[in-house]
Amino acid sequence: MIQRNLDGNSIIIRLEMKTKTINFGEVASAISIAGGDIVAIDVISTNQDVTVRDLTVAITDSEQNKRIIDQVRKLDGVTIINVSDRTFLLHLGGKIEITPKTPINNREDLSRVYTPDVARICTAIAEEPHKAYSLTIKRNTVAVVSDGSAVLGLGNIGPEAAMPVMEGKAMLFKQFAGVDAFPLCLQTQDTEEIIRTIKAISPAFGGINLEDISSPRCFEIEERLNKELDIPVFHDDQHGTAVVLYAGLINALKLAGKTLENSKIVICGIGAAGVACSNILLSAGAKRLIGVDRDGALVRTAVYDNPVWQSYAERTNPELEEGTLHEVLKGADVFIGVSRGNLLTREHILTMAKDPIVFAMANPIPEIMPNVIEDIVAVAATGRSDYPNQINNVLCFPGIFRAALDCRASVINEEMKLAAAIAIASSISDEERTRHYIIPSVFNDRVVKSIRERVIEAAIQTGVARRFPRKNNESKS
Amino acid sequence: MIQRNLDGNSIIIRLEMKTKTINFGEVASAISIAGGDIVAIDVISTNQDVTVRDLTVAITDSEQNKRIIDQVRKLDGVTIINVSDRTFLLHLGGKIEITPKTPINNREDLSRVYTPDVARICTAIAEEPHKAYSLTIKRNTVAVVSDGSAVLGLGNIGPEAAMPVMEGKAMLFKQFAGVDAFPLCLQTQDTEEIIRTIKAISPAFGGINLEDISSPRCFEIEERLNKELDIPVFHDDQHGTAVVLYAGLINALKLAGKTLENSKIVICGIGAAGVACSNILLSAGAKRLIGVDRDGALVRTAVYDNPVWQSYAERTNPELEEGTLHEVLKGADVFIGVSRGNLLTREHILTMAKDPIVFAMANPIPEIMPNVIEDIVAVAATGRSDYPNQINNVLCFPGIFRAALDCRASVINEEMKLAAAIAIASSISDEERTRHYIIPSVFNDRVVKSIRERVIEAAIQTGVARRFPRKNNESKS
Repeated sequence: MIQRNLDGNSIIIRLEMKTKTINFGEVASAISIAGGDIVAIDVISTNQDVTVRDLTVAITDSEQNKRIIDQVRKLDGVTIINVSDRTFLLHLGGKIEITPKTPINNREDLSRVYTPDVARICTAIAEEPHKAYSLTIKRNTVAVVSDGSAVLGLGNIGPEAAMPVMEGKAMLFKQFAGVDAFPLCLQTQDTEEIIRTIKAISPAFGGINLEDISSPRCFEIEERLNKELDIPVFHDDQHGTAVVLYAGLINALKLAGKTLENSKIVICGIGAAGVACSNILLSAGAKRLIGVDRDGALVRTAVYDNPVWQSYAERTNPELEEGTLHEVLKGADVFIGVSRGNLLTREHILTMAKDPIVFAMANPIPEIMPNVIEDIVAVAATGRSDYPNQINNVLCFPGIFRAALDCRASVINEEMKLAAAIAIASSISDEERTRHYIIPSVFNDRVVKSIRERVIEAAIQTGVARRFPRKNNESKS
Repeated sequence: MIQRNLDGNSIIIRLEMKTKTINFGEVASAISIAGGDIVAIDVISTNQDVTVRDLTVAITDSEQNKRIIDQVRKLDGVTIINVSDRTFLLHLGGKIEITPKTPINNREDLSRVYTPDVARICTAIAEEPHKAYSLTIKRNTVAVVSDGSAVLGLGNIGPEAAMPVMEGKAMLFKQFAGVDAFPLCLQTQDTEEIIRTIKAISPAFGGINLEDISSPRCFEIEERLNKELDIPVFHDDQHGTAVVLYAGLINALKLAGKTLENSKIVICGIGAAGVACSNILLSAGAKRLIGVDRDGALVRTAVYDNPVWQSYAERTNPELEEGTLHEVLKGADVFIGVSRGNLLTREHILTMAKDPIVFAMANPIPEIMPNVIEDIVAVAATGRSDYPNQINNVLCFPGIFRAALDCRASVINEEMKLAAAIAIASSISDEERTRHYIIPSVFNDRVVKSIRERVIEAAIQTGVARRFPRKNNESKS
């Protein structure tokens, strides 16, 4: 592998050289003397007087990094424009790689994995297409697909810029659940084109994880693909968030001595995540659910331009409450925020019912900071890692796809999502559960196993499993 | 990783059980006693009397395999339908995996490769799109794309059945050149739809390797994509074959004491590979080239329905020779076959010029077997691994893409293909070259390095390189 030396630790120094004052040899010497090994040079721009270059320098530790920079700074005619830091370095050349499961050491190996022997495998699949699941990567592989239209809090940054998130997601899939995931960022934001593209590339995959596609296109894309493909399609921004929210809420309600059925629940932000969170709570039995967006509480007696809101209003707010967020929040047992930062104050929370539950999940700034309401709520949760009770969908997607792949589910249905939420909630025992510990850590290795078992069970019970893995099949043996 | 135990050696036993005679526990016991570990059970079919199951059994060696089968055979009421063999086993669950380059061990790691820190990387790329090459997998990743319409000698077997070939290709890319390659087999054989799909998925990739797409669609797909994308698109069945053929021919001509310019060359089979082989020879200076297909020698005075043949005839056969393959073969110095088996006899070869060169590359049966003409030709070559001089495009694609990625070539142009051929030919020294050794082994590790160097040089000289890797840039520093 020719580029192996680029895989270790290295820094990229972007520097500007005055070509009449200094030549590149002197820069190279200074770096060598400080112990750095120049492994790549990219000329960024050049003219008669000045040349700008990126030097990739292999280093052994961060001390050496400093020594190299200090040496280069001493040189006349050289200006350091930029040195890439550790996060940037972790991203150099991307964060994932594609590796053979077995080495090809000789002609015999070659003839097995490639021509001529591979023809027997191709023929076997052509004769019995379901064998693609046992004889190709389809069994264990998911596509992570985005159009880059709604990436993190950054908005519509396009496919290239979305790739680091999707690569990170692929890492988490593998590390937490052994799922092979490949990131595909699409050069189109047209709904029909996205649907067509995903259908076209689907044969290699056992599932599709949609990611960071803006609302309302994400609804139609997911719905259509789930109808038109026989592999599960799961928009994580919607359902991952919904599953983990519900998991946290199960434990929060226990602590507050409330029930889902009887609680008045106000959800603020009726976009992709808000709709999915509402749907899972309705499926789980919530009755008194009120959605709030820019126009205030959504109510079926009103008429909305947004068809998603209209259909939402039909299914919620049975008591037809009207008014602003602050108005309908009065007497609520649960607040769920998937909107934007600093919408609420301590005073607003004080108008809620006794022992209120506040899930303020806007990122990076919650609707209200949990430390402000610590003493007046039963439970507070956010999307942040620097407070207790982080609602993080990393808890859901690895396990739920592990399950879907293992039982060859044709879809990930509502029952499977509920099962995943219950699995996550149950990984905290009655003894462990406290108001600061309603949701397990993403590094808790019981979570994926527990999700897998319960979700496969739900898939089998609802008739969408096409294979019964052993652990969920023992009683039938 | 839940499925780790599936990654070791295992066999799949498909067995039929008479449910009234035997229960599954007895089968499981027999396998356990023989030392096998049942890691998965798939129920294939079941009715009142009979159930068919696939048992995946982890084994430690092939002796154990035999012991297990013997034990199961002894049981009453059990019939073994099938035991997967080693080639099948190598394919279980696919041949490649997607792995993180760094582990995520704690929250700090997580925050660097995923939220919140990854947002800084996304922003950097959004601001300067060319950074996708340094900060995502684009730098080192190629898509291997097929529609499954012309797979090996198997024909139009569809996308699922084509996957094992594409996965094998991905293995070879990584093993021989450190290139990350991901297989995408498309659920469409429509030219426009294929072009649209590949454009849509292109942002993640630094290059596109088209594979096993039938003629004539392959010509338009490749041409259009090369125009419309800024990353190289290379149909390996055409150009890989052409590069390796020309490499072999360089050495064969030297041995026969002939020159490309003066040799009369007959190419049989003017499909995808035949056109590409002809093009590279014309680029390299061949003058007396005659293409032959079903209608005999292609000649510009005729009119063809196939526009590819028409344009081919315009550029070749300057002496306007007409007639069948056997007729135009008379007096030829070189025969190149990319057609079908057993088209020629020893008598036909005897009509060629003195010291003829015969490249009979039809697969799996050559146009004429080399052992039949051993004593009457200067050099014979085939596509087979069981004879000397195998023309195998595994020699080309890893190195040529390694080069294209490393210099961020916008296309793989004719000059780069010629450079690759010369690099392959040159990896056999004058001393080493014999009539049975005109082409290096695919396991010769000098080949990729040599291709990389020469192809990058050609890319820089023709102005299609967007980055000057160090080794090819030293004189400029």
